[in-house]
Amino acid sequence: MGDGGKKVRVLIRPREGILDAQGKAVERALPALGFDGVEQVRVGRLVELVADDPDRIDDLCQKLLANPLIEDYEIEILDD
Amino acid sequence: MGDGGKKVRVLIRPREGILDAQGKAVERALPALGFDGVEQVRVGRLVELVADDPDRIDDLCQKLLANPLIEDYEIEILDD
Repeated sequence: MGDGGKKVRVLIRPREGILDAQGKAVERALPALGFDGVEQVRVGRLVELVADDPDRIDDLCQKLLANPLIEDYEIEILDD
Repeated sequence: MGDGGKKVRVLIRPREGILDAQGKAVERALPALGFDGVEQVRVGRLVELVADDPDRIDDLCQKLLANPLIEDYEIEILDD
C-alpha cells in the first residue's frame, strides 16, 4: 500500500423498522442497572480500515461489510 | 424523558493487541472480491442512544455496553 492510504470509518446500523434485538436487550437491562433517561438504543457495527481508494468502500459495503436488505451504512473518510 | 435528551454515539473497538477475529475474516475475504489496497480492518460495535444525561454514558459503557478488558470505547455527543 502506498502512502496515500486513507483511514475510513463505516457505521452500520439496523434499518429503520427492522427489529434491533441487541438494542432492545440493552434497553431492557437499563433499569436494573439504575439507568433511567436512556432510550432509543440502537446497536450496530463499526468497521474501520485503511484504503488506498476510499471511493471503492461503498462497493465493499454492498458486497461484504453490510447487508443492505436489513442494514444502512454511512461512510466517513477521516482526516488523520 | 424531557426535551433535553441528547443523541449519543458510542464507538466500541477491540483493544490494541487483542485479536480481532471479525477484522481478520474481512481482510481474508478481500482478495477474492477483488479489493486490494484495503488493510488494517478492525470491526467493532456502534451504539447510538438518546440520553437525558450524557455524563452517565461513560458509566453505562463500563457496566453494560463494552467489556473494558478487551475493548476501548469512545463517546461522541451529537449536536442534532
